[in-house]
Amino acid sequence: MTTELIAELKIAAGKVDKAIAESTFPDAVSPVYLADAMRRYPANGGKRLRPAIMLWSAAAAGGDMDKILPAAAALEIFHNWTLVHDDIIDDDDLRRGNPTAHIVLSQALELPEQRRRKFGSDMAILAGDLMQGWAFELLDQTCCTAEVRLKLASELRCYGYLKLVSGEAEDVEMSCCDPADITVEAVRNMLLGKTGALLHFAARGGWLAGKDSVDQWDSVHARALGEFGDSLALAFQLQDDYLGIFGDVEKFGKPIGSDLQEGKATLLLLHALKNLPAAAAEELRGLLYCHEYTSCDIARARELFSAAGSVKYLQREICRLTDESCKALNTLPDSKYKTLLLELANYLITREK
Amino acid sequence: MTTELIAELKIAAGKVDKAIAESTFPDAVSPVYLADAMRRYPANGGKRLRPAIMLWSAAAAGGDMDKILPAAAALEIFHNWTLVHDDIIDDDDLRRGNPTAHIVLSQALELPEQRRRKFGSDMAILAGDLMQGWAFELLDQTCCTAEVRLKLASELRCYGYLKLVSGEAEDVEMSCCDPADITVEAVRNMLLGKTGALLHFAARGGWLAGKDSVDQWDSVHARALGEFGDSLALAFQLQDDYLGIFGDVEKFGKPIGSDLQEGKATLLLLHALKNLPAAAAEELRGLLYCHEYTSCDIARARELFSAAGSVKYLQREICRLTDESCKALNTLPDSKYKTLLLELANYLITREK
Repeated sequence: MTTELIAELKIAAGKVDKAIAESTFPDAVSPVYLADAMRRYPANGGKRLRPAIMLWSAAAAGGDMDKILPAAAALEIFHNWTLVHDDIIDDDDLRRGNPTAHIVLSQALELPEQRRRKFGSDMAILAGDLMQGWAFELLDQTCCTAEVRLKLASELRCYGYLKLVSGEAEDVEMSCCDPADITVEAVRNMLLGKTGALLHFAARGGWLAGKDSVDQWDSVHARALGEFGDSLALAFQLQDDYLGIFGDVEKFGKPIGSDLQEGKATLLLLHALKNLPAAAAEELRGLLYCHEYTSCDIARARELFSAAGSVKYLQREICRLTDESCKALNTLPDSKYKTLLLELANYLITREK
Repeated sequence: MTTELIAELKIAAGKVDKAIAESTFPDAVSPVYLADAMRRYPANGGKRLRPAIMLWSAAAAGGDMDKILPAAAALEIFHNWTLVHDDIIDDDDLRRGNPTAHIVLSQALELPEQRRRKFGSDMAILAGDLMQGWAFELLDQTCCTAEVRLKLASELRCYGYLKLVSGEAEDVEMSCCDPADITVEAVRNMLLGKTGALLHFAARGGWLAGKDSVDQWDSVHARALGEFGDSLALAFQLQDDYLGIFGDVEKFGKPIGSDLQEGKATLLLLHALKNLPAAAAEELRGLLYCHEYTSCDIARARELFSAAGSVKYLQREICRLTDESCKALNTLPDSKYKTLLLELANYLITREK
């Protein structure tokens, strides 16, 4: 990651955090612990990739980033409500090293132990709902014409609801299936929705807002930025799958092997199951859904993935997708912000966390 | 209920149902059972009070109801997502005599018995989320200026999220408290949010849309319509509390006594606990949270509520609130639709279901 990229990411994150912190929407929420829950995830770090892409895309279009800031903040809040509901669905207790929303909310009242978890999950459903309202309230504060604000909201409903939530539902469905029954195509579609939709919207919507003209949504540049977001999302997700098995637990922040434990239908796993000899594939299947993983188990899984050629396949795919995302930006006029978007894409394949 | 009121309610319901059925938003959702779940509640009957109020309020403002139809449909979808999430939170298996969303969705895949309930609830969270996007997409199709559409959306976020969801959360919180610790004021506030917010928005937003002018939201007439919605909601809810104990199970559609079983802090219960002699209050408390209710239990509870004067108190309150809601409409110019709104208010106190 270049020094400039780091510096610009920090600037974008700082501005977005400030815009979120200054938004008064949650102040009217009662009980107060619910308002606190709404603010907790966005204040809890994270890469702020989506708002940064939106701001840089707007700037690449010649727009004033400060005018687009509410839209970037909206995108971060939108992303975070999906995490709140996701964490309920996945029954996760930790997010970025901190207790998830439903765990924090389970402690809000003095309740008997057996009622806490349900209370926390009920309140977290409502916190996620409230954050949806908050996201669109922020979006509406973007300094654009009324028509562009309506267009941004409508496209966020298309990408943030129809595509993203459908992807999330497909992911839940896949978690109930045998990975052997899932196609590469189905996984790609799911990822394009679950991870790709908001990156697509960030890049393309940023251009729309920067130009402040409704028909720019369908311009060649905006479409190219959408494709940039799609490819970036897939590359990002494949890198995540790689780090989930081959990463360094200290840097990655999630336990290595949790994808195996969940039997997650990653492209890495699908490739290995398909390309390993029957006995080895069976051995790999035996390493799914285990209660615990020793370092020997992880080492053996790594060997099997390597033997299947799946690591090389994944790395080739990540490079190809990163190339694709960079090529999509070719048509854009040169600018500092185009360069930042290119650097971001290249950073994502070298990241270790 | 007058013949005209019945006929006009039917017309409004028919138009709203058609607008919802023709909306293509859910068609892009995957998996298909999730799209089906989005359509199930709105197609499942209900009184359609909110859209009717919105349409009549718009017509009372001189607006064309057909132009406002998408907003009325949006309101019905918004109301229904809150029911989907509510039913998860309350762990209810039935809604209007049919299986709730999470129960239907639990059957979508062939899953082992112990995984079904969680899968159904996870998918129902997502169905409710998608319906939020759907509601605002419909709202945006209202035939109004861009500014009025933005204003409608912003006020729906204020009333539908901040007030309604806060009220829902307060209700969840109250269900964890001893009714003796809850004040009448807290219950009224909760009800004004949970039930009042959307009726307020329906009446006031209808006027705004009918006039198609942003500053009409704060006009004397729009404010009066908001107050009409507030009082109507409280009267409606008190009548619901009454029917929950004194209703006819055949007509009411919900088991009589379920409020007692949940220990629900209704104004009826709070009044009785406060006004009964200590021994009788203790006996009534003994009738809360029971596993089953015999007809003797219900009869005894009814006696205690009557002895406390709580039934008279409730009926007085319902009449007072209905009067208040009708008085709020005084300032409105006379019209067929003003009369329908008045008749609706008077119907709600005589209803048996």
